[in-house]
Amino acid sequence: MKWLDTREAGFEPSFLALLNDARETTTRVDGAVSAIITEVRQKGDVALLELTRRFDRWNPTEPAALRVTAAEMEAAAATVPAEQLEALQTAARRIEAFHRAQLPTDLELTDAEGVTTGMRWGAIDAVGLYVPGGKAAYPSSVLMNALPARVAGVARIAMCVPTPDGVLNPLVLAAARLAGVSEVWRIGGAQAIAALAWGTAMLAPVDRIVGPGNAYVAEAKRQVFGRVGIDSIAGPSEVVVLADAGNDPRHVALDLLAQAEHDEAAQSILITDDAAFGRRVAEALEQALQTLPRAAIARQSWDQHGAIILVRDWAEAVELTNRLAPEHLQVMVEAPRALMSRIRHAGAAFLGRFCPEAVGDYVAGPNHVLPTGRTARFASGLSVFDFLKRTTWVEADARALSAIGGAAVTLARAEGLDAHAMSVAVRLDAIEKRP
Amino acid sequence: MKWLDTREAGFEPSFLALLNDARETTTRVDGAVSAIITEVRQKGDVALLELTRRFDRWNPTEPAALRVTAAEMEAAAATVPAEQLEALQTAARRIEAFHRAQLPTDLELTDAEGVTTGMRWGAIDAVGLYVPGGKAAYPSSVLMNALPARVAGVARIAMCVPTPDGVLNPLVLAAARLAGVSEVWRIGGAQAIAALAWGTAMLAPVDRIVGPGNAYVAEAKRQVFGRVGIDSIAGPSEVVVLADAGNDPRHVALDLLAQAEHDEAAQSILITDDAAFGRRVAEALEQALQTLPRAAIARQSWDQHGAIILVRDWAEAVELTNRLAPEHLQVMVEAPRALMSRIRHAGAAFLGRFCPEAVGDYVAGPNHVLPTGRTARFASGLSVFDFLKRTTWVEADARALSAIGGAAVTLARAEGLDAHAMSVAVRLDAIEKRP
Repeated sequence: MKWLDTREAGFEPSFLALLNDARETTTRVDGAVSAIITEVRQKGDVALLELTRRFDRWNPTEPAALRVTAAEMEAAAATVPAEQLEALQTAARRIEAFHRAQLPTDLELTDAEGVTTGMRWGAIDAVGLYVPGGKAAYPSSVLMNALPARVAGVARIAMCVPTPDGVLNPLVLAAARLAGVSEVWRIGGAQAIAALAWGTAMLAPVDRIVGPGNAYVAEAKRQVFGRVGIDSIAGPSEVVVLADAGNDPRHVALDLLAQAEHDEAAQSILITDDAAFGRRVAEALEQALQTLPRAAIARQSWDQHGAIILVRDWAEAVELTNRLAPEHLQVMVEAPRALMSRIRHAGAAFLGRFCPEAVGDYVAGPNHVLPTGRTARFASGLSVFDFLKRTTWVEADARALSAIGGAAVTLARAEGLDAHAMSVAVRLDAIEKRP
Repeated sequence: MKWLDTREAGFEPSFLALLNDARETTTRVDGAVSAIITEVRQKGDVALLELTRRFDRWNPTEPAALRVTAAEMEAAAATVPAEQLEALQTAARRIEAFHRAQLPTDLELTDAEGVTTGMRWGAIDAVGLYVPGGKAAYPSSVLMNALPARVAGVARIAMCVPTPDGVLNPLVLAAARLAGVSEVWRIGGAQAIAALAWGTAMLAPVDRIVGPGNAYVAEAKRQVFGRVGIDSIAGPSEVVVLADAGNDPRHVALDLLAQAEHDEAAQSILITDDAAFGRRVAEALEQALQTLPRAAIARQSWDQHGAIILVRDWAEAVELTNRLAPEHLQVMVEAPRALMSRIRHAGAAFLGRFCPEAVGDYVAGPNHVLPTGRTARFASGLSVFDFLKRTTWVEADARALSAIGGAAVTLARAEGLDAHAMSVAVRLDAIEKRP
């Protein structure tokens, strides 16, 4: 963990080092992925069977075995403890309500020239949802990816999840059922992305693919981009906590550790105006690490990427936060809304001393799929907008075209596009010659 | 040009061939582009001077010569004929009005549990706009790319345009001035994209880059993606015209040619329910080709990628259009709105017999930067949304956390993320112990 102090001479270079701390470890897998995609395109379902045997270590005997049946879904959900099922339902209800409020409205305008223009929102027909297998299979992510699609009106949501050694994750299936996923396939890795993008005999292709995955999945998404839409490729998670001395240091320490326990490459940063408070947080964090089950991961994240930044005042904190453009931001000061109004760049914010980021990971309502690695400068979290697209339209009759057509003819000629100009000009002529 | 008829046995394979007609010619330039980006990152402004000499064949003596001055902007605009300047102003006014209407509103909701959630839209700080040089330098594209950014509230728009042989394009500069572009740089190709993404001593980096370009520019955008946001990489243009026999065949022929004259790889498709009308359009098109200045390009596009599809009825036309998901769609039938309501996938639509697509290229108001190559299934045209990003937020006090915190603890534990669970649980404990 680094201690930074804006009052010290070396602050700016140290802060720049933090800003440019490239936490991603990139593995080159493009050749392997391209081979897998070719295999799936050429051999379809047979390739899926072979690749599942090779990578997931179980033996589906026929393509149909790769699809999770309704009975399997029900059986899996029945094994989930009632308390967990209720918590999932609470989460689903709240996530759905928030995303429903995001739904935009269509536009229609008629101007003085008589031209009517409009913009219409429509749902994507079919979406593919990738869910990682094994330890990283998070039911909360199934809700966060599938529910916005459902709310947007996507008719078909096809989910792919690897089942290493043949083992299904009941809570993931329960979440899929709750979120209204249409199909669940036991297919993982680059082969799942290839099947979703290109389709096979049994799995119809989709129009957009979302969801996190390992390096192979990320590279496969890059390679099928263009044929289908993809979401942005998420990097390691991060949080910036703005906290004054009015907070319990242990609360703040656990908030920092909640990020750090995700991944060795995660980053937790505390910005405070009180040095003594900063030290108390650091101590509380060390103490909490003693008993944390994922202490090894959290320790490495905190040691390598963590920071406590001491600022003169909250104006400095705002400036540094805007430069960091963090994925998650906690604002734990006396008047959090006033401070928040000056923050321009953050994926998701959590306001108040009783609003830890972890409530946002599960039940608050807004999405937990968020822009990482300073991309909040230009990118946004997952939302219904990711599952909608816009069609703009223009309606013009003879009178309207007479009013605006001349300018189009002039500009088309200036650009040397004569057929463009003529397509307008012949109509203007026809209008003039009307009785 | 292909004649297709839904009544004929071979229709489906012929239509599939049309759907899968990959019109893109991809050149592998990734190595060259990666070398250019490295050169700009290492040598900054000096690299920009060298690369401009090499690729654009003029000799800027110092970095400052790469920036177009306010005086040069004014002088260039002064050489533009008044008619063209007025047409540009009409276009700018209408484009701005339409995009202003797109501006979304923020969200704030307080629920029964006392949790307040919200979503706030904010502008990107700085945007880079690439404008191709030479023949493909379209002033209309400057307006279409810069005005939505301006309307969204982007504070800084840095435009890069190559000036081959040192020649500035006055109409492009006039458009930039009109659209409120902040800086104009005489830099092109991959070196412009590298400078915008990474910055140099004189050119501050931006957060997102938009605008069309050649293979080098497209590949450079791919390579800097992640560091900055990019727009989608446009393929060749296309139009589908739905027209009944009530139209003047010559009008429809010119609409088809207006697409075809863009590029040999462009695609124009007429769908009609009247064979005789289809033949008349084909004849009118041949006749118009006799005198069209860009006939060679349009001829190749029409011969290789053009099609006339005869349908039994308009329901069939709707189905085929949804499969084509065209960039541009003209609906030239008796009741165009009724037909349009059944079209799910199109970038931009033009309704009525007096509404050629060319008005949309210049003055209608909606954007002319649109999803090509069937990507309208999941993608949308350029808009203010491309220059905005969302921050979601949650505000919870002790009472609100008590209401929803338990579910978060349960789910965090089920996912094995104990610090997540503890960050909520310690606060719930603290609330319980309050006097």
